[in-house]
Amino acid sequence: MTKIPVGVLGATGIVGQQYIALLADHPWFEVRYAAASPRSAGKKYAEATAGRRHFADHVYTNIGDLVVRDANDVSQAIAAAKAGDCAFVFSALDMGKDEIRSLEEAYAAAGIPVVSNASAHRWTADVPMLIAEVNPDHADIIPIQRKNRGWDKGFIAVKPNCSIQSYMTPIRALLNAGYEVTRLMVTTLQAVSGAGYPGVPSLDIIDNIVPYIGGEEEKSEREPLKILGEVKGNAIESASLPRISAFCNRTPVTDGHIACISLEFGAKKPSIEEVKGIWTAFTALPQELDLPMAPKRPIIVREEADRPQPRKDRDADKAMAVSVGRIRPCNVFDLRFVGLSHNTVRGAAGGGILNAELLKAKGYL
Amino acid sequence: MTKIPVGVLGATGIVGQQYIALLADHPWFEVRYAAASPRSAGKKYAEATAGRRHFADHVYTNIGDLVVRDANDVSQAIAAAKAGDCAFVFSALDMGKDEIRSLEEAYAAAGIPVVSNASAHRWTADVPMLIAEVNPDHADIIPIQRKNRGWDKGFIAVKPNCSIQSYMTPIRALLNAGYEVTRLMVTTLQAVSGAGYPGVPSLDIIDNIVPYIGGEEEKSEREPLKILGEVKGNAIESASLPRISAFCNRTPVTDGHIACISLEFGAKKPSIEEVKGIWTAFTALPQELDLPMAPKRPIIVREEADRPQPRKDRDADKAMAVSVGRIRPCNVFDLRFVGLSHNTVRGAAGGGILNAELLKAKGYL
Amino acid sequence: MTKIPVGVLGATGIVGQQYIALLADHPWFEVRYAAASPRSAGKKYAEATAGRRHFADHVYTNIGDLVVRDANDVSQAIAAAKAGDCAFVFSALDMGKDEIRSLEEAYAAAGIPVVSNASAHRWTADVPMLIAEVNPDHADIIPIQRKNRGWDKGFIAVKPNCSIQSYMTPIRALLNAGYEVTRLMVTTLQAVSGAGYPGVPSLDIIDNIVPYIGGEEEKSEREPLKILGEVKGNAIESASLPRISAFCNRTPVTDGHIACISLEFGAKKPSIEEVKGIWTAFTALPQELDLPMAPKRPIIVREEADRPQPRKDRDADKAMAVSVGRIRPCNVFDLRFVGLSHNTVRGAAGGGILNAELLKAKGYL
Amino acid sequence: MTKIPVGVLGATGIVGQQYIALLADHPWFEVRYAAASPRSAGKKYAEATAGRRHFADHVYTNIGDLVVRDANDVSQAIAAAKAGDCAFVFSALDMGKDEIRSLEEAYAAAGIPVVSNASAHRWTADVPMLIAEVNPDHADIIPIQRKNRGWDKGFIAVKPNCSIQSYMTPIRALLNAGYEVTRLMVTTLQAVSGAGYPGVPSLDIIDNIVPYIGGEEEKSEREPLKILGEVKGNAIESASLPRISAFCNRTPVTDGHIACISLEFGAKKPSIEEVKGIWTAFTALPQELDLPMAPKRPIIVREEADRPQPRKDRDADKAMAVSVGRIRPCNVFDLRFVGLSHNTVRGAAGGGILNAELLKAKGYL
Repeated sequence: MTKIPVGVLGATGIVGQQYIALLADHPWFEVRYAAASPRSAGKKYAEATAGRRHFADHVYTNIGDLVVRDANDVSQAIAAAKAGDCAFVFSALDMGKDEIRSLEEAYAAAGIPVVSNASAHRWTADVPMLIAEVNPDHADIIPIQRKNRGWDKGFIAVKPNCSIQSYMTPIRALLNAGYEVTRLMVTTLQAVSGAGYPGVPSLDIIDNIVPYIGGEEEKSEREPLKILGEVKGNAIESASLPRISAFCNRTPVTDGHIACISLEFGAKKPSIEEVKGIWTAFTALPQELDLPMAPKRPIIVREEADRPQPRKDRDADKAMAVSVGRIRPCNVFDLRFVGLSHNTVRGAAGGGILNAELLKAKGYL
Repeated sequence: MTKIPVGVLGATGIVGQQYIALLADHPWFEVRYAAASPRSAGKKYAEATAGRRHFADHVYTNIGDLVVRDANDVSQAIAAAKAGDCAFVFSALDMGKDEIRSLEEAYAAAGIPVVSNASAHRWTADVPMLIAEVNPDHADIIPIQRKNRGWDKGFIAVKPNCSIQSYMTPIRALLNAGYEVTRLMVTTLQAVSGAGYPGVPSLDIIDNIVPYIGGEEEKSEREPLKILGEVKGNAIESASLPRISAFCNRTPVTDGHIACISLEFGAKKPSIEEVKGIWTAFTALPQELDLPMAPKRPIIVREEADRPQPRKDRDADKAMAVSVGRIRPCNVFDLRFVGLSHNTVRGAAGGGILNAELLKAKGYL
Repeated sequence: MTKIPVGVLGATGIVGQQYIALLADHPWFEVRYAAASPRSAGKKYAEATAGRRHFADHVYTNIGDLVVRDANDVSQAIAAAKAGDCAFVFSALDMGKDEIRSLEEAYAAAGIPVVSNASAHRWTADVPMLIAEVNPDHADIIPIQRKNRGWDKGFIAVKPNCSIQSYMTPIRALLNAGYEVTRLMVTTLQAVSGAGYPGVPSLDIIDNIVPYIGGEEEKSEREPLKILGEVKGNAIESASLPRISAFCNRTPVTDGHIACISLEFGAKKPSIEEVKGIWTAFTALPQELDLPMAPKRPIIVREEADRPQPRKDRDADKAMAVSVGRIRPCNVFDLRFVGLSHNTVRGAAGGGILNAELLKAKGYL
Repeated sequence: MTKIPVGVLGATGIVGQQYIALLADHPWFEVRYAAASPRSAGKKYAEATAGRRHFADHVYTNIGDLVVRDANDVSQAIAAAKAGDCAFVFSALDMGKDEIRSLEEAYAAAGIPVVSNASAHRWTADVPMLIAEVNPDHADIIPIQRKNRGWDKGFIAVKPNCSIQSYMTPIRALLNAGYEVTRLMVTTLQAVSGAGYPGVPSLDIIDNIVPYIGGEEEKSEREPLKILGEVKGNAIESASLPRISAFCNRTPVTDGHIACISLEFGAKKPSIEEVKGIWTAFTALPQELDLPMAPKRPIIVREEADRPQPRKDRDADKAMAVSVGRIRPCNVFDLRFVGLSHNTVRGAAGGGILNAELLKAKGYL
């Protein structure tokens, strides 16, 4: 099969590099267009990333000669699209929210679909915020989005913040099994890669914890509600439950976000064994469609007393699985557990690629 | 004033060394007796700690020539007491719970009061579990304890686990101000020194988090209730509230436990500004008595968005203050905040010394 | 091809687990025998390693049902050998040197060849200390060893300490090119996994360096001389040069040993460009034989100013390549460079497996 | 005694904050003038450092109301000098070398002496590069410098790079005792605070080593020669020995630079015991003058096998002492040892303050 040519916006940043790395051997997609800030524009990819590379060498040799374009200049992407080098783009743009919002719209308006990692459009009413296993049906707002905006081929789909990905799939599985979640308390212990590069200064994090990540708690409390919402009319209507309270901490870990979660259920409450059974058995559309980036089992239940741990579990199943453990009754609510996912793969580039695979399988790409 | 001669049981372990270090220049107490395992017995303190010292040199030179005794042999302490070298002991014993329980009782029965850091007697009904600012009145069970057991001069007083010390003082302050706390969710991010030495293997914690500390969550959920209880008849009766749910995580930090806390109040709820005012103004008996180890302000309220942090705040006011920050409404309960305290000082040896000062001031020592 | 059944002695320790992990998909060898301390004997491998696993799950599920034997009991290995389950053993024994020496001899005497990671036999005159790319010819002392000891099929072959593996291959390449190395100064920055598990206490290494590793400097100064020596008569005779001076430091890194090296050459001195050319072009017998564990290029020359780095380069080519960088003239000697290798793969289990592959290809296994 | 009013240039950076912190209780000097970049100018010190403070609270409260001036605007310092608020300045400027060079000259020309931490003037022939215990006599070039430049009261004195401070005092002691050092090999393991703030990204240093620090090796190889040189005529003439070769590595440590050093002596070679005796006994002019910042013993000899260590030894004697250990014969040269000093105190602000004390005692301030 001929691979679909794709572009990466923000290709030289850490998430952009993660996209390039994960797409290096992808069976469906092939990176043929890379764009970044004007500073990188005109340089070969190898040169533009020199001195700030985060992945294995072959990532940079494979597409090292690709000339990086200016992400602000949509006309270059249009030209590439015409030349058959850019069927859609992954957006890992790193600039002001308003700029990203306009720029992603400009790509979409030009007929180039945007599968985005950025937060700019997460709260745009007709833009789906997708976790492929959790709300794949939200993709079906795309025809409405196109109609709303008069776009024929382009569209925008986003993914949520990395911090919530360690527990949204487990919650979806419980909801599917008929257990309403009314309240949720979460404290995260997040890796430094979540802040990009250079990101967190080492002087702030060696032998230390920073109990604050700007904007992260608000995202953790709001985004789940849109994801658990429904397409109604021209928009996605957020769910009203669960109520969520979040603490987000930065910890001296390279990759892998831990979340400590307590849940309160509605009237119907599962036993601990039921919960484990539900999670172990859970699969969703990406698994049914056997999408290349989909983990075989979206949720891995660990029985050891001291797992999941970032260094030992973050890479499970291509770093795309969510590992859960310490599943037990909560002394205050109903259920407690610890969730873990790889923040730059499952929570960023890998999740974006899986979304694109889903959108392709659904016929939107 | 002539200093009171004191002993340290378990003097060569990390908490024992912390006691020796903090007592090096103490105005009231002077270490004149040190006991540890049979392996160390007979050696000079300097020699017994060679190769596993955690504090500054002068700590070991000052009492370096003190010959370490066998902690299991109470008769040696009795002899030291008679010789005027051991008016009471700090217990930092590290052995089986049952052994510690019997051994501490043997010292007390021999007329040597025991101010203990160990968990063995925390749930003995007539043994006070003291945080000097939180429940100093529990010390007044000592005459009852003595009577219960037929001891004249000896007694046992303990302190609670280090993990709860980052929030018990703030809670006491709120209770004193008339705000009942009905439910409490806490997730801790704890330092490796809490596990003693050698303790946590570096391979388990570099670039990693361990979301489990054996027994710690149970202690975190139960001990506050005894501390908030009341002396009734021959025993301390635990409080029934708050209900507590705890997650305890080990993190790559040397010293300083972080706690992320959500509180639900009873019918009467304070505003955020009231809470800050209550905490800033809070003092207790140790401050009134101007005890040497007491922090000037037991609770330091930080207004910065990203504090308290272990490396920056653990040493506040002789490492005896609790620092709190990120005080804000909880989306699910009523109040959220982050607390921090130094686990081997405030949470262990420093807290033990403050307890002894309190017991001295109250006339029990 | 039917795989050769192999055993692992010390199978539950960190190096033993590394052997099991690396052999999980090996094309030639299959683990069918595992032995460890009496404490583990009789348990299934999955059970014996519970709570102290260092590698991915499938490692433990694959051979999880294998019952662990007592490594001290050679008769069990003999029975396994007869049953066709143990053609030879990898030794990752962790006990006293004298015990290991006797025990490895007992296995060899029983006709079971021992490919060892232990240091016990490194200085036994008729035992080869192999780095497959550096002194593969030393394997040819095996017939002499067998004759010396009256063994028919068994033998012992060992590998050197992990700390020297970051520079021995580069030195061999320079010697092969005709450049005598007369003096060598090396300072290593070593990972904690080199100390095994539990190994280095986290309290010793968070925000810290320990400028001492017991015995490591002596090994670093002596072992290269045997490796660069020659089989003469019944023994391997050590080389007399280079003179070596070593500092070995423990650093807060999980895996990957860095070495900073200055070399003095004899009369003939290569240019920097020649050195780079020699290293880039270097291959040896393992590459010629295309052994499964052999890196394609034993030495990877990095041109970036700040490489090699442990986290970015330790996994190069199955974690079996040595990465070198910062190649430049020395202000005091002739040449300076930084070498890096993965200490538990290239420097331990992976190096042992490559040695076994070499010994198989040479007909000794 | 009335304190001397001093200024700090670059007062909001990490070294500037370190100056403010160390001067908070200084018996001779009092900070009454603070200057930084135009971005901070006009703000109160407390405000200008909000969100990037590295030291205890009282540091920022003490001088929190001091309004920060623009360091580029010398006229403000002149005004402050006239008002009796700025007798001299400590320079911790962080800008381009050429800019610093001109700016420091402008202050000096205006009659305001500059005691600098910056590297800009280290190689200016008539500017002394001082380590107070090593070359206090170089201060006596100041009258020549003033004459050269037509300055009456102003002058510039600098200190060397932090990386060499762990061994220059020991070398001075050996030279004083009559032992010529001909060659020196050094490998440093340096703390992240040496790179300032934000400095080293955490993604570069967690579970990692960076074997490169731009410019650091060149400084380590050259600066000692000027320091060991002599005032001759109008300039300081560098020594010709020792020849030095340096590797500089960045490690995951907050504060404290380790150096592993091998020395070759001239014809006369001390025994190990002599070396220890020389170092233990060493004192210099700062000790004789009993300067406030001077450590009682500039060199602390440690006999433990595994010391000095950054976390345990960096704070020795106000963080101003150099700790040395692992003193033993070198297998290639004559003597090996490990040195440690606190890079932002001894190696930066503390060293600068000690230099100022020396210059005051000598009558230049």
